[in-house]
Amino acid sequence: MNTAAQRVVRWNNTVRSHAVDELAVEEPLEIRIDTQPVAVTMRTPGNDDELAAGFLFTEGLVKSRGAFREIRLNRRNRAGNSIDVFLASGVSVHLDQLKRRGFISSSCGVCGKESIRALRKKFKPVRSRLSVRAELLLDLPNHLRRAQPTFDRTGGLHAAGIFTQDGGLVVAREDIGRHNAVDKVIGFGLLNDLLPFDEHILVVSGRASFEIIQKSIAARLPIVCAVSAPSSLAVEFARANAQTLVGFIRDKRMNVYGGQQRVRFP
Amino acid sequence: MNTAAQRVVRWNNTVRSHAVDELAVEEPLEIRIDTQPVAVTMRTPGNDDELAAGFLFTEGLVKSRGAFREIRLNRRNRAGNSIDVFLASGVSVHLDQLKRRGFISSSCGVCGKESIRALRKKFKPVRSRLSVRAELLLDLPNHLRRAQPTFDRTGGLHAAGIFTQDGGLVVAREDIGRHNAVDKVIGFGLLNDLLPFDEHILVVSGRASFEIIQKSIAARLPIVCAVSAPSSLAVEFARANAQTLVGFIRDKRMNVYGGQQRVRFP
Repeated sequence: MNTAAQRVVRWNNTVRSHAVDELAVEEPLEIRIDTQPVAVTMRTPGNDDELAAGFLFTEGLVKSRGAFREIRLNRRNRAGNSIDVFLASGVSVHLDQLKRRGFISSSCGVCGKESIRALRKKFKPVRSRLSVRAELLLDLPNHLRRAQPTFDRTGGLHAAGIFTQDGGLVVAREDIGRHNAVDKVIGFGLLNDLLPFDEHILVVSGRASFEIIQKSIAARLPIVCAVSAPSSLAVEFARANAQTLVGFIRDKRMNVYGGQQRVRFP
Repeated sequence: MNTAAQRVVRWNNTVRSHAVDELAVEEPLEIRIDTQPVAVTMRTPGNDDELAAGFLFTEGLVKSRGAFREIRLNRRNRAGNSIDVFLASGVSVHLDQLKRRGFISSSCGVCGKESIRALRKKFKPVRSRLSVRAELLLDLPNHLRRAQPTFDRTGGLHAAGIFTQDGGLVVAREDIGRHNAVDKVIGFGLLNDLLPFDEHILVVSGRASFEIIQKSIAARLPIVCAVSAPSSLAVEFARANAQTLVGFIRDKRMNVYGGQQRVRFP
Protein backbone atom coordinates (compact mmCIF):
# COMPACT_ATOMS: atom_id res chain seq x y z
CA MET A 1 0.00 0.00 0.00
CA ASN A 2 1.86 3.07 -1.12
CA THR A 3 -1.17 5.36 -1.05
CA ALA A 4 -3.66 6.18 1.70
CA ALA A 5 -7.09 7.76 1.27
CA GLN A 6 -8.07 10.71 3.45
CA ARG A 7 -11.18 12.85 3.50
CA VAL A 8 -10.51 16.47 2.67
CA VAL A 9 -12.37 19.71 2.22
CA ARG A 10 -11.68 20.78 -1.35
CA TRP A 11 -12.05 24.34 -2.52
CA ASN A 12 -11.90 24.89 -6.24
CA ASN A 13 -12.66 28.22 -7.82
CA THR A 14 -15.00 29.23 -4.94
CA VAL A 15 -16.81 25.88 -4.87
CA ARG A 16 -16.39 23.93 -1.66
CA SER A 17 -16.86 20.17 -1.57
CA HIS A 18 -15.99 17.14 0.46
CA ALA A 19 -13.72 14.73 -1.32
CA VAL A 20 -11.37 11.82 -0.80
CA ASP A 21 -7.73 12.47 -1.58
CA GLU A 22 -5.07 9.86 -2.12
CA LEU A 23 -1.86 10.54 -0.25
CA ALA A 24 1.59 9.09 -0.71
CA VAL A 25 2.34 6.95 2.31
CA GLU A 26 5.27 8.04 4.46
CA GLU A 27 6.39 5.70 7.24
CA PRO A 28 9.71 5.14 8.99
CA LEU A 29 11.76 2.06 8.17
CA GLU A 30 14.24 0.76 10.69
CA ILE A 31 17.07 -1.19 9.08
CA ARG A 32 18.71 -3.77 11.33
CA ILE A 33 21.86 -5.81 10.74
CA ASP A 34 21.85 -9.09 12.66
CA THR A 35 19.06 -7.60 14.83
CA GLN A 36 21.05 -4.44 15.63
CA PRO A 37 19.40 -1.18 14.44
CA VAL A 38 21.71 0.76 12.15
CA ALA A 39 19.46 3.28 10.40
CA VAL A 40 15.99 4.78 10.23
CA THR A 41 14.72 6.39 7.06
CA MET A 42 11.31 7.89 6.24
CA ARG A 43 10.11 5.97 3.21
CA THR A 44 7.11 4.78 1.24
CA PRO A 45 6.49 1.11 2.07
CA GLY A 46 7.18 -1.43 -0.67
CA ASN A 47 10.34 -3.15 -1.91
CA ASP A 48 11.84 -2.68 1.53
CA ASP A 49 14.32 -5.49 0.89
CA GLU A 50 15.65 -3.56 -2.10
CA LEU A 51 15.76 -0.38 -0.03
CA ALA A 52 17.75 -2.05 2.75
CA ALA A 53 20.11 -3.79 0.32
CA GLY A 54 20.58 -0.67 -1.79
CA PHE A 55 21.13 1.53 1.22
CA LEU A 56 23.79 -0.72 2.71
CA PHE A 57 25.48 -0.99 -0.69
CA THR A 58 25.45 2.69 -1.62
CA GLU A 59 26.74 3.59 1.84
CA GLY A 60 29.68 1.24 1.35
CA LEU A 61 28.85 -1.25 4.10
CA VAL A 62 28.15 -4.17 1.81
CA LYS A 63 30.05 -4.98 -1.38
CA SER A 64 28.08 -7.79 -2.98
CA ARG A 65 24.91 -9.82 -2.84
CA GLY A 66 26.88 -12.64 -1.28
CA ALA A 67 27.20 -10.61 1.91
CA PHE A 68 23.54 -11.31 2.69
CA ARG A 69 22.24 -14.50 4.22
CA GLU A 70 18.66 -13.28 4.37
CA ILE A 71 16.66 -10.05 4.25
CA ARG A 72 13.16 -10.13 5.69
CA LEU A 73 10.69 -8.00 7.61
CA ASN A 74 11.09 -8.04 11.38
CA ARG A 75 7.80 -9.66 12.35
CA ARG A 76 7.91 -8.23 15.84
CA ASN A 77 7.18 -4.83 14.35
CA ARG A 78 3.51 -5.18 13.51
CA ALA A 79 3.43 -2.00 11.46
CA GLY A 80 5.87 -3.56 9.00
CA ASN A 81 8.35 -0.75 9.60
CA SER A 82 11.43 -2.76 10.54
CA ILE A 83 13.54 -4.93 8.28
CA ASP A 84 16.17 -7.47 9.26
CA VAL A 85 19.31 -7.99 7.24
CA PHE A 86 21.25 -11.11 8.23
CA LEU A 87 24.83 -11.30 7.03
CA ALA A 88 26.38 -14.40 5.54
CA SER A 89 28.72 -16.39 7.72
CA GLY A 90 32.10 -14.70 8.00
CA VAL A 91 30.85 -11.33 6.72
CA SER A 92 31.06 -8.28 8.95
CA VAL A 93 30.32 -4.62 8.37
CA HIS A 94 32.18 -1.58 9.59
CA LEU A 95 29.51 0.70 10.93
CA ASP A 96 32.04 3.48 11.37
CA GLN A 97 32.11 3.74 7.56
CA LEU A 98 28.58 5.02 7.64
CA LYS A 99 28.37 8.43 6.12
CA ARG A 100 26.34 10.14 8.79
CA ARG A 101 23.55 12.32 7.55
CA GLY A 102 21.77 14.43 10.05
CA PHE A 103 22.44 14.08 13.69
CA ILE A 104 25.55 13.05 15.47
CA SER A 105 26.31 12.92 19.13
CA SER A 106 29.39 13.77 21.07
CA SER A 107 28.85 10.65 23.13
CA CYS A 108 29.20 8.48 20.06
CA GLY A 109 32.52 7.08 18.95
CA VAL A 110 31.46 7.21 15.34
CA CYS A 111 30.43 10.81 15.58
CA GLY A 112 33.75 11.88 16.93
CA LYS A 113 35.25 10.96 13.59
CA GLU A 114 32.59 12.82 11.69
CA SER A 115 33.90 15.59 9.54
CA ILE A 116 32.67 17.52 6.60
CA ARG A 117 35.40 15.93 4.55
CA ALA A 118 33.84 12.54 5.20
CA LEU A 119 30.78 13.64 3.26
CA ARG A 120 32.89 13.84 0.14
CA LYS A 121 33.69 10.17 0.31
CA LYS A 122 36.12 9.20 -2.41
CA PHE A 123 35.29 6.78 -5.16
CA LYS A 124 37.22 5.71 -8.19
CA PRO A 125 36.07 7.64 -11.27
CA VAL A 126 33.37 5.97 -13.34
CA ARG A 127 34.78 4.10 -16.32
CA SER A 128 32.44 3.37 -19.17
CA ARG A 129 32.56 3.78 -22.92
CA LEU A 130 28.78 4.10 -23.03
CA SER A 131 27.55 6.72 -25.45
CA VAL A 132 23.90 7.41 -26.15
CA ARG A 133 21.98 9.51 -28.67
CA ALA A 134 20.57 12.70 -27.19
CA GLU A 135 17.12 11.89 -28.62
CA LEU A 136 17.10 8.58 -26.77
CA LEU A 137 17.81 10.34 -23.47
CA LEU A 138 14.97 12.79 -24.11
CA ASP A 139 12.47 9.92 -24.19
CA LEU A 140 13.48 8.42 -20.86
CA PRO A 141 11.62 10.76 -18.46
CA ASN A 142 8.33 10.03 -20.23
CA HIS A 143 9.13 6.34 -20.13
CA LEU A 144 9.79 6.61 -16.38
CA ARG A 145 6.58 8.54 -15.84
CA ARG A 146 4.55 5.80 -17.52
CA ALA A 147 6.13 3.31 -15.11
CA GLN A 148 5.12 5.46 -12.14
CA PRO A 149 1.50 4.68 -11.35
CA THR A 150 1.28 6.41 -7.99
CA PHE A 151 2.47 9.87 -8.94
CA ASP A 152 -0.61 10.69 -10.98
CA ARG A 153 -2.82 9.80 -8.07
CA THR A 154 -0.94 11.59 -5.31
CA GLY A 155 1.42 14.10 -6.89
CA GLY A 156 3.71 13.19 -4.04
CA LEU A 157 6.23 10.57 -5.03
CA HIS A 158 9.70 10.71 -6.49
CA ALA A 159 10.76 8.09 -8.99
CA ALA A 160 14.03 6.56 -10.11
CA GLY A 161 14.55 4.27 -13.09
CA ILE A 162 17.45 2.28 -14.52
CA PHE A 163 17.55 2.08 -18.32
CA THR A 164 19.74 0.17 -20.76
CA GLN A 165 21.67 1.99 -23.47
CA ASP A 166 18.85 1.11 -25.89
CA GLY A 167 16.30 2.86 -23.70
CA GLY A 168 14.85 -0.32 -22.22
CA LEU A 169 13.56 -0.02 -18.67
CA VAL A 170 15.27 -2.37 -16.22
CA VAL A 171 13.47 -1.24 -13.07
CA ALA A 172 11.52 1.76 -11.78
CA ARG A 173 10.65 2.51 -8.17
CA GLU A 174 8.70 5.27 -6.43
CA ASP A 175 9.27 6.68 -2.96
CA ILE A 176 8.51 9.79 -0.97
CA GLY A 177 12.28 10.19 -0.52
CA ARG A 178 14.28 10.62 -3.68
CA HIS A 179 17.33 8.92 -2.13
CA ASN A 180 15.15 5.93 -1.21
CA ALA A 181 13.91 5.57 -4.80
CA VAL A 182 17.55 5.48 -5.93
CA ASP A 183 18.47 2.98 -3.19
CA LYS A 184 15.58 0.76 -4.30
CA VAL A 185 16.59 0.57 -7.96
CA ILE A 186 20.24 -0.03 -7.02
CA GLY A 187 19.13 -2.58 -4.42
CA PHE A 188 17.11 -4.30 -7.14
CA GLY A 189 20.28 -4.47 -9.20
CA LEU A 190 22.27 -5.88 -6.30
CA LEU A 191 19.70 -8.53 -5.38
CA ASN A 192 19.36 -9.60 -9.01
CA ASP A 193 23.09 -9.71 -9.77
CA LEU A 194 22.91 -6.84 -12.27
CA LEU A 195 25.62 -4.65 -10.75
CA PRO A 196 27.71 -2.80 -11.70
CA PHE A 197 25.34 -0.66 -13.77
CA ASP A 198 28.29 0.58 -15.82
CA GLU A 199 26.44 0.37 -19.14
CA HIS A 200 23.23 1.88 -17.78
CA ILE A 201 21.45 5.18 -17.30
CA LEU A 202 19.79 6.42 -14.10
CA VAL A 203 16.80 8.74 -14.49
CA VAL A 204 15.38 10.61 -11.49
CA SER A 205 12.07 12.47 -11.56
CA GLY A 206 13.20 15.52 -9.62
CA ARG A 207 16.38 17.29 -8.68
CA ALA A 208 19.86 15.82 -8.44
CA SER A 209 21.59 16.42 -5.11
CA PHE A 210 25.02 15.42 -3.92
CA GLU A 211 23.53 12.38 -2.24
CA ILE A 212 21.94 11.08 -5.46
CA ILE A 213 25.22 11.42 -7.32
CA GLN A 214 27.14 9.71 -4.54
CA LYS A 215 24.75 6.73 -4.60
CA SER A 216 24.81 6.50 -8.40
CA ILE A 217 28.61 6.49 -8.42
CA ALA A 218 28.62 3.63 -5.93
CA ALA A 219 26.67 1.65 -8.55
CA ARG A 220 29.13 2.86 -11.27
CA LEU A 221 26.37 4.51 -13.32
CA PRO A 222 28.01 6.47 -16.18
CA ILE A 223 25.00 8.66 -16.99
CA VAL A 224 22.49 10.32 -14.63
CA CYS A 225 19.51 12.28 -16.02
CA ALA A 226 17.44 14.52 -13.73
CA VAL A 227 14.16 16.08 -14.79
CA SER A 228 14.87 19.12 -12.61
CA ALA A 229 17.90 21.07 -11.48
CA PRO A 230 21.13 19.62 -10.14
CA SER A 231 22.83 21.29 -7.19
CA SER A 232 26.29 22.82 -7.33
CA LEU A 233 27.76 19.94 -5.35
CA ALA A 234 26.05 17.35 -7.56
CA VAL A 235 27.71 18.86 -10.62
CA GLU A 236 31.07 19.17 -8.88
CA PHE A 237 30.95 15.59 -7.65
CA ALA A 238 29.78 14.11 -10.98
CA ARG A 239 32.59 15.90 -12.82
CA ALA A 240 35.19 14.81 -10.26
CA ASN A 241 34.12 11.21 -10.86
CA ALA A 242 33.95 11.34 -14.68
CA GLN A 243 30.19 10.86 -14.67
CA THR A 244 27.82 12.35 -17.25
CA LEU A 245 25.17 14.48 -15.57
CA VAL A 246 22.15 15.74 -17.53
CA GLY A 247 19.64 18.12 -15.95
CA PHE A 248 16.36 19.81 -16.88
CA ILE A 249 15.68 16.98 -19.31
CA ARG A 250 12.16 17.67 -20.58
CA ASP A 251 10.23 19.09 -23.51
CA LYS A 252 12.89 18.50 -26.15
CA ARG A 253 15.64 20.14 -24.12
CA MET A 254 18.39 19.23 -21.70
CA ASN A 255 21.52 20.65 -20.09
CA VAL A 256 24.65 18.51 -20.01
CA TYR A 257 26.71 19.47 -16.97
CA GLY A 258 29.68 17.20 -17.52
CA GLY A 259 30.88 14.13 -19.36
CA GLN A 260 29.34 15.29 -22.63
CA GLN A 261 31.40 12.77 -24.61
CA ARG A 262 28.75 10.19 -23.67
CA VAL A 263 25.93 12.16 -25.32
CA ARG A 264 25.77 11.98 -29.13
CA PHE A 265 24.11 14.98 -30.72
CA PRO A 266 22.86 14.77 -34.32
CA MET B 1 26.33 33.25 -2.54
CA ASN B 2 23.45 30.87 -2.94
CA THR B 3 23.95 30.30 -6.66
CA ALA B 4 26.97 29.13 -8.63
CA ALA B 5 27.53 29.51 -12.36
CA GLN B 6 28.61 26.50 -14.41
CA ARG B 7 29.19 26.08 -18.12
CA VAL B 8 26.84 23.60 -19.73
CA VAL B 9 26.05 22.16 -23.12
CA ARG B 10 22.44 23.08 -23.79
CA TRP B 11 20.30 21.22 -26.26
CA ASN B 12 17.00 22.83 -27.14
CA ASN B 13 14.79 21.52 -29.90
CA THR B 14 17.76 20.07 -31.81
CA VAL B 15 19.90 23.21 -31.42
CA ARG B 16 23.07 22.71 -29.41
CA SER B 17 24.78 25.63 -27.71
CA HIS B 18 27.22 26.42 -24.96
CA ALA B 19 25.67 28.32 -22.09
CA VAL B 20 26.17 29.29 -18.49
CA ASP B 21 23.70 27.85 -16.02
CA GLU B 22 23.07 29.06 -12.49
CA LEU B 23 22.92 26.30 -9.92
CA ALA B 24 21.58 26.32 -6.40
CA VAL B 25 24.53 25.94 -4.08
CA GLU B 26 24.58 22.83 -1.90
CA GLU B 27 27.24 22.59 0.79
CA PRO B 28 27.43 20.77 4.14
CA LEU B 29 27.02 22.71 7.37
CA GLU B 30 28.48 21.33 10.55
CA ILE B 31 26.68 22.60 13.65
CA ARG B 32 28.77 22.63 16.82
CA ILE B 33 27.67 23.27 20.39
CA ASP B 34 30.48 24.63 22.55
CA THR B 35 32.91 23.41 19.84
CA GLN B 36 31.48 19.87 19.87
CA PRO B 37 30.01 18.76 16.50
CA VAL B 38 26.38 17.70 16.89
CA ALA B 39 24.99 17.65 13.35
CA VAL B 40 25.81 17.95 9.67
CA THR B 41 23.17 19.01 7.17
CA MET B 42 23.41 19.65 3.43
CA ARG B 43 22.22 23.20 2.97
CA THR B 44 22.39 26.33 0.83
CA PRO B 45 24.75 28.83 2.50
CA GLY B 46 23.17 31.93 3.98
CA ASN B 47 21.45 32.69 7.26
CA ASP B 48 23.38 29.86 8.85
CA ASP B 49 22.86 31.35 12.30
CA GLU B 50 19.10 31.07 11.79
CA LEU B 51 19.53 27.53 10.49
CA ALA B 52 21.54 26.48 13.54
CA ALA B 53 19.18 28.21 15.98
CA GLY B 54 16.07 26.88 14.26
CA PHE B 55 17.45 23.38 14.03
CA LEU B 56 18.35 23.22 17.71
CA PHE B 57 14.94 24.65 18.62
CA THR B 58 12.79 22.44 16.38
CA GLU B 59 14.69 19.38 17.56
CA GLY B 60 13.89 20.26 21.15
CA LEU B 61 17.45 20.90 22.37
CA VAL B 62 17.01 24.60 23.01
CA LYS B 63 13.89 26.25 24.41
CA SER B 64 14.53 29.98 24.06
CA ARG B 65 16.82 32.60 22.62
CA GLY B 66 18.29 33.08 26.08
CA ALA B 67 19.95 29.69 25.80
CA PHE B 68 22.48 31.16 23.37
CA ARG B 69 25.50 33.18 24.35
CA GLU B 70 26.74 33.54 20.79
CA ILE B 71 26.31 32.01 17.36
CA ARG B 72 29.05 32.60 14.79
CA LEU B 73 30.89 30.89 11.96
CA ASN B 74 33.79 28.68 12.99
CA ARG B 75 36.61 30.58 11.38
CA ARG B 76 38.88 27.56 11.32
CA ASN B 77 36.69 26.15 8.58
CA ARG B 78 37.75 28.26 5.63
CA ALA B 79 34.91 27.08 3.43
CA GLY B 80 32.43 28.68 5.84
CA ASN B 81 30.76 25.31 6.41
CA SER B 82 30.95 25.10 10.19
CA ILE B 83 29.00 27.15 12.70
CA ASP B 84 29.61 27.49 16.42
CA VAL B 85 26.79 27.78 18.91
CA PHE B 86 27.93 28.80 22.38
CA LEU B 87 25.44 28.25 25.19
CA ALA B 88 24.73 30.77 27.88
CA SER B 89 26.22 30.17 31.28
CA GLY B 90 24.32 27.46 33.15
CA VAL B 91 22.54 26.14 30.05
CA SER B 92 23.09 22.58 28.93
CA VAL B 93 21.54 20.49 26.21
CA HIS B 94 20.57 16.85 26.25
CA LEU B 95 21.94 15.44 23.05
CA ASP B 96 20.10 12.19 23.63
CA GLN B 97 16.89 14.09 22.87
CA LEU B 98 17.99 14.44 19.29
CA LYS B 99 15.56 12.84 16.96
CA ARG B 100 17.97 10.88 14.86
CA ARG B 101 17.40 10.96 11.14
CA GLY B 102 19.45 8.73 9.03
CA PHE B 103 22.24 6.72 10.45
CA ILE B 104 22.66 5.31 13.86
CA SER B 105 25.34 3.08 15.21
CA SER B 106 25.27 0.23 17.63
CA SER B 107 28.43 1.60 19.18
CA CYS B 108 26.65 4.79 20.14
CA GLY B 109 24.82 5.22 23.40
CA VAL B 110 22.29 7.51 21.81
CA CYS B 111 21.62 5.14 18.98
CA GLY B 112 20.82 2.29 21.30
CA LYS B 113 17.79 4.23 22.46
CA GLU B 114 16.66 4.92 18.92
CA SER B 115 13.30 3.54 18.04
CA ILE B 116 10.69 4.19 15.47
CA ARG B 117 8.46 5.46 18.23
CA ALA B 118 10.95 8.22 18.95
CA LEU B 119 10.27 9.64 15.52
CA ARG B 120 6.72 10.39 16.57
CA LYS B 121 7.88 12.71 19.28
CA LYS B 122 4.99 14.02 21.30
CA PHE B 123 4.04 17.64 21.49
CA LYS B 124 1.13 19.38 23.11
CA PRO B 125 -1.60 20.09 20.54
CA VAL B 126 -1.47 23.49 18.91
CA ARG B 127 -3.80 26.00 20.56
CA SER B 128 -4.82 28.99 18.52
CA ARG B 129 -8.06 30.74 17.71
CA LEU B 130 -6.62 32.00 14.46
CA SER B 131 -9.04 31.88 11.56
CA VAL B 132 -8.28 33.14 8.09
CA ARG B 133 -10.28 33.71 4.91
CA ALA B 134 -9.68 31.06 2.27
CA GLU B 135 -9.00 33.76 -0.35
CA LEU B 136 -6.24 35.20 1.80
CA LEU B 137 -4.54 31.80 2.01
CA LEU B 138 -4.74 31.44 -1.79
CA ASP B 139 -2.62 34.55 -2.23
CA LEU B 140 0.22 33.43 0.02
CA PRO B 141 2.11 31.08 -2.37
CA ASN B 142 2.40 33.87 -4.96
CA HIS B 143 3.52 36.23 -2.24
CA LEU B 144 6.19 33.71 -1.18
CA ARG B 145 7.31 33.21 -4.76
CA ARG B 146 7.86 36.93 -5.18
CA ALA B 147 10.08 36.86 -2.08
CA GLN B 148 12.13 34.02 -3.57
CA PRO B 149 14.68 35.54 -5.94
CA THR B 150 16.84 32.49 -6.48
CA PHE B 151 14.23 30.00 -7.60
CA ASP B 152 13.60 31.69 -10.91
CA ARG B 153 17.29 31.58 -11.71
CA THR B 154 18.02 28.00 -10.68
CA GLY B 155 14.75 26.12 -10.43
CA GLY B 156 16.40 24.35 -7.55
CA LEU B 157 15.48 25.86 -4.20
CA HIS B 158 12.71 25.23 -1.73
CA ALA B 159 11.21 28.14 0.13
CA ALA B 160 9.44 28.66 3.43
CA GLY B 161 7.66 31.79 4.59
CA ILE B 162 5.99 32.95 7.78
CA PHE B 163 2.92 35.16 7.30
CA THR B 164 0.70 37.10 9.68
CA GLN B 165 -3.03 36.52 9.76
CA ASP B 166 -3.45 39.57 7.52
CA GLY B 167 -1.21 38.04 4.86
CA GLY B 168 1.86 40.12 5.73
CA LEU B 169 5.19 38.43 5.14
CA VAL B 170 7.32 38.15 8.27
CA VAL B 171 10.25 36.27 6.76
CA ALA B 172 11.01 34.08 3.74
CA ARG B 173 14.04 31.86 3.27
CA GLU B 174 15.26 29.60 0.48
CA ASP B 175 17.30 26.42 0.78
CA ILE B 176 18.07 23.31 -1.20
CA GLY B 177 16.64 21.31 1.72
CA ARG B 178 13.02 21.98 2.54
CA HIS B 179 13.58 21.23 6.24
CA ASN B 180 16.43 23.75 6.29
CA ALA B 181 14.21 26.48 4.83
CA VAL B 182 11.72 25.79 7.64
CA ASP B 183 14.48 25.77 10.27
CA LYS B 184 15.71 29.12 8.94
CA VAL B 185 12.34 30.91 9.23
CA ILE B 186 11.74 29.45 12.68
CA GLY B 187 15.31 30.32 13.66
CA PHE B 188 14.65 33.87 12.47
CA GLY B 189 11.64 33.94 14.78
CA LEU B 190 13.65 32.61 17.70
CA LEU B 191 16.55 35.03 17.25
CA ASN B 192 14.14 37.98 16.90
CA ASP B 193 11.94 37.04 19.86
CA LEU B 194 8.89 36.37 17.67
CA LEU B 195 8.10 32.87 18.95
CA PRO B 196 5.70 31.23 19.46
CA PHE B 197 4.25 31.70 15.97
CA ASP B 198 0.81 30.78 17.31
CA GLU B 199 -1.00 33.48 15.32
CA HIS B 200 0.94 32.85 12.13
CA ILE B 201 0.87 30.80 8.93
CA LEU B 202 3.72 28.76 7.47
CA VAL B 203 3.83 28.40 3.69
CA VAL B 204 6.19 25.89 2.04
CA SER B 205 6.87 25.82 -1.69
CA GLY B 206 6.81 22.06 -2.12
CA ARG B 207 5.48 19.03 -0.34
CA ALA B 208 4.70 18.64 3.34
CA SER B 209 6.42 15.70 5.01
CA PHE B 210 6.25 14.47 8.58
CA GLU B 211 9.44 16.36 9.35
CA ILE B 212 8.03 19.71 8.20
CA ILE B 213 4.94 19.24 10.34
CA GLN B 214 7.00 18.25 13.36
CA LYS B 215 9.14 21.37 13.06
CA SER B 216 6.11 23.63 12.55
CA ILE B 217 4.43 22.20 15.63
CA ALA B 218 7.55 22.94 17.67
CA ALA B 219 7.03 26.61 16.70
CA ARG B 220 3.27 26.28 17.53
CA LEU B 221 2.18 27.24 14.02
CA PRO B 222 -1.59 26.73 13.76
CA ILE B 223 -1.77 26.71 9.93
CA VAL B 224 0.60 25.14 7.41
CA CYS B 225 0.05 25.59 3.66
CA ALA B 226 1.96 23.46 1.15
CA VAL B 227 1.95 24.15 -2.57
CA SER B 228 2.24 20.44 -3.29
CA ALA B 229 1.09 17.20 -1.70
CA PRO B 230 1.29 16.30 1.96
CA SER B 231 2.33 12.79 2.97
CA SER B 232 0.11 10.40 4.89
CA LEU B 233 2.17 10.88 8.04
CA ALA B 234 2.11 14.66 7.68
CA VAL B 235 -1.69 14.60 7.65
CA GLU B 236 -1.87 12.14 10.53
CA PHE B 237 0.55 14.16 12.63
CA ALA B 238 -1.07 17.52 11.89
CA ARG B 239 -4.49 16.14 12.87
CA ALA B 240 -3.13 14.55 16.04
CA ASN B 241 -1.78 17.96 17.05
CA ALA B 242 -4.85 20.05 16.16
CA GLN B 243 -3.01 21.81 13.37
CA THR B 244 -4.64 23.04 10.16
CA LEU B 245 -2.91 21.54 7.11
CA VAL B 246 -3.68 22.84 3.62
CA GLY B 247 -2.17 21.17 0.55
CA PHE B 248 -2.15 21.69 -3.23
CA ILE B 249 -2.76 25.39 -2.67
CA ARG B 250 -2.49 26.92 -6.14
CA ASP B 251 -4.55 28.22 -9.04
CA LYS B 252 -7.64 29.09 -6.99
CA ARG B 253 -7.84 25.73 -5.33
CA MET B 254 -6.75 24.02 -2.13
CA ASN B 255 -7.33 20.89 -0.09
CA VAL B 256 -7.83 21.22 3.66
CA TYR B 257 -6.64 18.03 5.36
CA GLY B 258 -7.53 18.89 8.91
CA GLY B 259 -8.39 21.73 11.27
CA GLN B 260 -10.80 23.28 8.78
CA GLN B 261 -12.33 25.45 11.50
CA ARG B 262 -9.43 27.85 10.93
CA VAL B 263 -10.30 28.38 7.26
CA ARG B 264 -13.26 30.69 6.54
CA PHE B 265 -14.99 29.99 3.27
CA PRO B 266 -17.27 32.63 1.68
